[in-house]
Amino acid sequence: MELLNFKPIGFIKTPFKSKEGMPIQSTGAQGVKGTIEIEAEYIEGLKDLDGFSHIILIYHFHLSKTYELSIKPFMDDNLRGIFSTRAPKRPNPVGFTVVKLIEIKDNLVHIENIDVIDGTPLIDIKPFIPDIDSPDVQKLGWLQGKSDKMGVKKSDNRFIE
Amino acid sequence: MELLNFKPIGFIKTPFKSKEGMPIQSTGAQGVKGTIEIEAEYIEGLKDLDGFSHIILIYHFHLSKTYELSIKPFMDDNLRGIFSTRAPKRPNPVGFTVVKLIEIKDNLVHIENIDVIDGTPLIDIKPFIPDIDSPDVQKLGWLQGKSDKMGVKKSDNRFIE
Repeated sequence: MELLNFKPIGFIKTPFKSKEGMPIQSTGAQGVKGTIEIEAEYIEGLKDLDGFSHIILIYHFHLSKTYELSIKPFMDDNLRGIFSTRAPKRPNPVGFTVVKLIEIKDNLVHIENIDVIDGTPLIDIKPFIPDIDSPDVQKLGWLQGKSDKMGVKKSDNRFIE
Repeated sequence: MELLNFKPIGFIKTPFKSKEGMPIQSTGAQGVKGTIEIEAEYIEGLKDLDGFSHIILIYHFHLSKTYELSIKPFMDDNLRGIFSTRAPKRPNPVGFTVVKLIEIKDNLVHIENIDVIDGTPLIDIKPFIPDIDSPDVQKLGWLQGKSDKMGVKKSDNRFIE
């Protein structure tokens, strides 16, 4: 099968130097500041992005070297299918998070509420557009009644690989 | 720089056989049904996903062979930085959409409100979790006052490559 090849457009600098103790999602990273250092060749593509208050980051879980199809997520004690979780040990270790955009200067994109480990390779940036990105959700599966606690739950070492 | 290698976990079947005339976003694809055919080796990872009403699809814009850092998006007549748009001709041609999950049977994930072209390679599936994925957006940049019209705007051939 065809392989897909991507190249990081930049790297995300954050205060989180190790996986242990970091927030598991952006709601647990309220106020945490980070900076995206965009590679020089892509700076032109940042034009107009500063008009948006929130941006989508698609990034590489670069510390995940293997994957598991069933895992115990941080918010649960049962084994769950990996695609029903946001855990990093995925067949394609791609992460998704929405952060607040503070300011763009040259190749530096200053952001807030960032929940990734320092040095994370960035694959793409997109504007967050509520009309298309905020559906009217009815069911939350195994996370029902738990997702509001994602803000206080911290990571441990279970996904270190 | 390190290259990132991914392998499709499956392919998305939709009624859209060509880029022209297809919806530009999922709000323009209300009720449009599609099916994700997951590769057999990953079926175990689908467990528990059917509890969620909405899922995130991260996919490959496989028809985009080149990129442009400044483009005219469908919703605008001005050149915009590619990262401030959702256009497919991106440095890493990765797409993001949120769809409604209808049913999962074996390796088939039946979805609704799908806005991608037939045969699109799928990179990842994640549950959509409003607590972390629906921020309180204040600014919409060049899309301000226009994003509610994304539902009626159709694609043309400007990004055909």
